[in-house]
Amino acid sequence: MTEQVKPQEKEKMTIVVFSGELDKAIAAFIIATTGASMGMDVTMFFTFWGLNILKKNEGGMKSKGFKRKMFSILNRGGSKRLKLSRFNMFGLGTWMMKMVMKDSHYPSIDEFITMSKDMGIKLIPCSTTCGMFGLTENSFRGGVEGIAGAAFFVNEARQAKVTLFI
Amino acid sequence: MTEQVKPQEKEKMTIVVFSGELDKAIAAFIIATTGASMGMDVTMFFTFWGLNILKKNEGGMKSKGFKRKMFSILNRGGSKRLKLSRFNMFGLGTWMMKMVMKDSHYPSIDEFITMSKDMGIKLIPCSTTCGMFGLTENSFRGGVEGIAGAAFFVNEARQAKVTLFI
Amino acid sequence: MTEQVKPQEKEKMTIVVFSGELDKAIAAFIIATTGASMGMDVTMFFTFWGLNILKKNEGGMKSKGFKRKMFSILNRGGSKRLKLSRFNMFGLGTWMMKMVMKDSHYPSIDEFITMSKDMGIKLIPCSTTCGMFGLTENSFRGGVEGIAGAAFFVNEARQAKVTLFI
Repeated sequence: MTEQVKPQEKEKMTIVVFSGELDKAIAAFIIATTGASMGMDVTMFFTFWGLNILKKNEGGMKSKGFKRKMFSILNRGGSKRLKLSRFNMFGLGTWMMKMVMKDSHYPSIDEFITMSKDMGIKLIPCSTTCGMFGLTENSFRGGVEGIAGAAFFVNEARQAKVTLFI
Repeated sequence: MTEQVKPQEKEKMTIVVFSGELDKAIAAFIIATTGASMGMDVTMFFTFWGLNILKKNEGGMKSKGFKRKMFSILNRGGSKRLKLSRFNMFGLGTWMMKMVMKDSHYPSIDEFITMSKDMGIKLIPCSTTCGMFGLTENSFRGGVEGIAGAAFFVNEARQAKVTLFI
Repeated sequence: MTEQVKPQEKEKMTIVVFSGELDKAIAAFIIATTGASMGMDVTMFFTFWGLNILKKNEGGMKSKGFKRKMFSILNRGGSKRLKLSRFNMFGLGTWMMKMVMKDSHYPSIDEFITMSKDMGIKLIPCSTTCGMFGLTENSFRGGVEGIAGAAFFVNEARQAKVTLFI
């Protein structure tokens, strides 16, 4: 942490992704990929329900302990299980949203994750909430960075030009 | 990116208004108008459900395509149709909140929008989500600026002293 | 506002706590206490439903006027009444979350508030929303700072390295 800011150093953007809803995930990825395409160094820090976005779509429910196991059945996660924060209507609204996005050639969440990795965006699960929910690095899809704690986030955020909590 | 800050240049505030709920809209406008009254140069960037705040209260449901048309019936919008994020209770809580605000002489959303424009706050709909929802500049009330993309927001945010995602 | 940053001056973090849900409150306190432990000068500004976090658990429902009284029955508040934003399931999910946190030796909200005060974090209720909801300084638990308006928040935020809206 010498932090000698060299003139050619990239401006940073840090996004906390707290929410695990489809619409908020799309907003987070649009802003992150836009930032990266404009030359910013982007870090996305996934915590609480946001961890669901990075969970494997298959398996990955091996939380330890009875209470955590119960909770992980409810809070299954995976990019394909995200729902809209409004108008979900037992899945109908979410399905309509996905159709509209597909028709308009917007990327899906899986495509956004691949794009993000290709653009050098760092996708980091929060170790504190991983601990709460009984998740390990193995719970997440490939390409996700190692888990890191809140101190890592705060350190990124205080160097960043743009910090958002989504 | 020469960014030589001249002494007379105003400090910037940028607010992403993602949520279309009455309480979050009030919070966003209180912060925005406070910033403007303190001499800041404020931009509000409306995206996803936040677009509903700026939609015309009458008409404006002419989205193209069947799926978008269905979605726009659900997601009607307009400043008079916003609901509380909590305790809506089929409109009762929202109605009580509006009454309390009126009794205490707080501005309504329509009044906040007028105040904002009078104070030089820029109200900008996000072009990406306008595209998703089939909205055009014609869907919004008068006084709204032209629509702009995520790159516009990121560029504002990285110059801003204060950036919020609401 | 001369703002001559002296080298020994602490970096600031400002958090608007708009939400009154258990999970968002935990996230806010984790970030705030982490910032303080890293030497930052942290201010938490509680507004709307976030005020519930600081309300006394007993009494404190003496809002003036019939409509406000009705609303304060619904919107009771107190650190022990906070619910999860997802999977509350009539209290079952919230109870499971609290159990998991206890088992893993995470602090409760009451413990987080005590820790925050011990670390010098300022907990400030927003005067504008206190006015709306008919709350006074007497509605809040001990240790809370005097109430302050949106101008106070904006002034903190524009000096802060990190500002979040939660």
